[in-house]
Amino acid sequence: MPKDYAAEILGGSSTAVARLITWLEDEDERAYQCMVKLYRHTGNAYIIGITGSPGAGKSTLTDRLTSHIRKAGLTVGIIAVDPSSPFTGGAILGDRVRMSEHNLDPDVYIRSMATRGFLGGTSKATGDVVKVLDAFGKDVVIIETVGVGQDEVDIIGIADTTCLVLVPGLGDAIQSMKAGIMEIADVFVINKADRAGADQLWAEVCYRVEQDAHIKSTDWSPTMVKTVAVNNEGVDDLWKAIGQHQDHLKNSGKLLEKRRERTYRETLRMIHNELFRVVREQLDSTGQLDHLVEDILDHKQDPYTVMRQIVKNWLSISQK
Amino acid sequence: MPKDYAAEILGGSSTAVARLITWLEDEDERAYQCMVKLYRHTGNAYIIGITGSPGAGKSTLTDRLTSHIRKAGLTVGIIAVDPSSPFTGGAILGDRVRMSEHNLDPDVYIRSMATRGFLGGTSKATGDVVKVLDAFGKDVVIIETVGVGQDEVDIIGIADTTCLVLVPGLGDAIQSMKAGIMEIADVFVINKADRAGADQLWAEVCYRVEQDAHIKSTDWSPTMVKTVAVNNEGVDDLWKAIGQHQDHLKNSGKLLEKRRERTYRETLRMIHNELFRVVREQLDSTGQLDHLVEDILDHKQDPYTVMRQIVKNWLSISQK
Repeated sequence: MPKDYAAEILGGSSTAVARLITWLEDEDERAYQCMVKLYRHTGNAYIIGITGSPGAGKSTLTDRLTSHIRKAGLTVGIIAVDPSSPFTGGAILGDRVRMSEHNLDPDVYIRSMATRGFLGGTSKATGDVVKVLDAFGKDVVIIETVGVGQDEVDIIGIADTTCLVLVPGLGDAIQSMKAGIMEIADVFVINKADRAGADQLWAEVCYRVEQDAHIKSTDWSPTMVKTVAVNNEGVDDLWKAIGQHQDHLKNSGKLLEKRRERTYRETLRMIHNELFRVVREQLDSTGQLDHLVEDILDHKQDPYTVMRQIVKNWLSISQK
Repeated sequence: MPKDYAAEILGGSSTAVARLITWLEDEDERAYQCMVKLYRHTGNAYIIGITGSPGAGKSTLTDRLTSHIRKAGLTVGIIAVDPSSPFTGGAILGDRVRMSEHNLDPDVYIRSMATRGFLGGTSKATGDVVKVLDAFGKDVVIIETVGVGQDEVDIIGIADTTCLVLVPGLGDAIQSMKAGIMEIADVFVINKADRAGADQLWAEVCYRVEQDAHIKSTDWSPTMVKTVAVNNEGVDDLWKAIGQHQDHLKNSGKLLEKRRERTYRETLRMIHNELFRVVREQLDSTGQLDHLVEDILDHKQDPYTVMRQIVKNWLSISQK
């Protein structure tokens, strides 16, 4: 009889968790079977997103924040999404393994994931991995990711509370890339706040937050926190700020609303990915597309008409 | 009678080009009608990808390179894909409009596109926009994009020759993000080569290129070029390097192979996007997904089973 990985995960096996996450990354069919069983055990974890430029000190901050959460008696799952190459991804993984003081704590589960795959593969896997750690019983799940690119914005969209980590002196070009992310930040963290330029950055972010408050009709005005993560300074303030945002979401009914939207997006994305999987499998196995590609290259057919015809032939909903 | 935008584009109307690109971005049905007509006029443009960190000087380099290409008697289309927010995207667009010396040249067409949309929307639109500029008669199409995130890697995958722009002193964290991109670079450009650290960066990239040559069995070893784009230094070397790569692709038969792979990927992506579009339209219009989301939130159903059922119900391929 094959091992029941879902049961093992619910029983506390971190080895089974690691195996399942690998299956999720590889889009292995066994992952699907497990997730079906695990789903009803999800919905309890609070999800925190930590994002910011490379070099902003996200890993250290996550590490220190984890200590605070552990002291509060809660268990933690950490998902570090690295935009590194599948070929060279080992470097950042190594970094993380080296830095964490929580490696020996059974109540902290840490997983690095490379950003990879075609068409938002990671975003999908990240949402699933959050569910795994949720079902695994972690009270808080932290997603740590570099805040650039649509994929990362999508990933951070999974979080209940999103913290954007900024640091003085990283330069305008990089900070401006954060524009898309700035709008979804619930808590701004000025890390390395002992550095020159911290006050100016604080003032800039203040100005930005106030401006946004005028433009957007929102009932949450982002909190701002100063930290020096390496010295463990301000991390308690960050944890408090997250707690305040959590209370706000719960009391206003926004948490349910947020999770409803997330479930909608995630289900839509799952359908999107599943469609692609089935279509690709079908086209690859029949060789149908190979012939069409030759015709398209020879300009005997155009890809737009081909695409519409294939879709028309395949979809049965139109007839129903 | 409605305007025939395809005919206008083939007749040289840049206004019609601008309109079509907006339709493509909006996934307007009229774009589809135009693309069907334009497709047989594509396949002539040579496609160059310029990628690199924010602040690497890609825009300036693209501008200077465009001057060189114009002097060679060729026409140019530029697609600048900016990872800026849909809310604040105007900044970078403004920047580009300000900087280009080619705004008044009718043989240069410049278009900024924001990275936006759900699930790789930009990559799809970029591929179509390249075809539009190709059909519009541009000899060279330059795609300029920040080389981070899977979406950008997909975008740059459209190019025949990919140039990766690196600069001294941007720091390890940022350069290491380029890992995924480094593997697909055909030409390495060390820009701002008059800065401290340029020689060291050159040596590092050299080492990397040599290492890769040992590992991978490829018949093209990436060329390396030093530039100071603001002073127009080394831009002729870059143009030469691109020409060498182009010759290599043509003489080895790799150009056709590359375009065959691209056509395959693009057609697959089109089919997938079209399927998803139809399915999503159906889900939204019937309100079916809303009901399912409530059941999923209440843990009455799991999203994994829901997803499989929806896809199974809609696709008729499995029975055929």
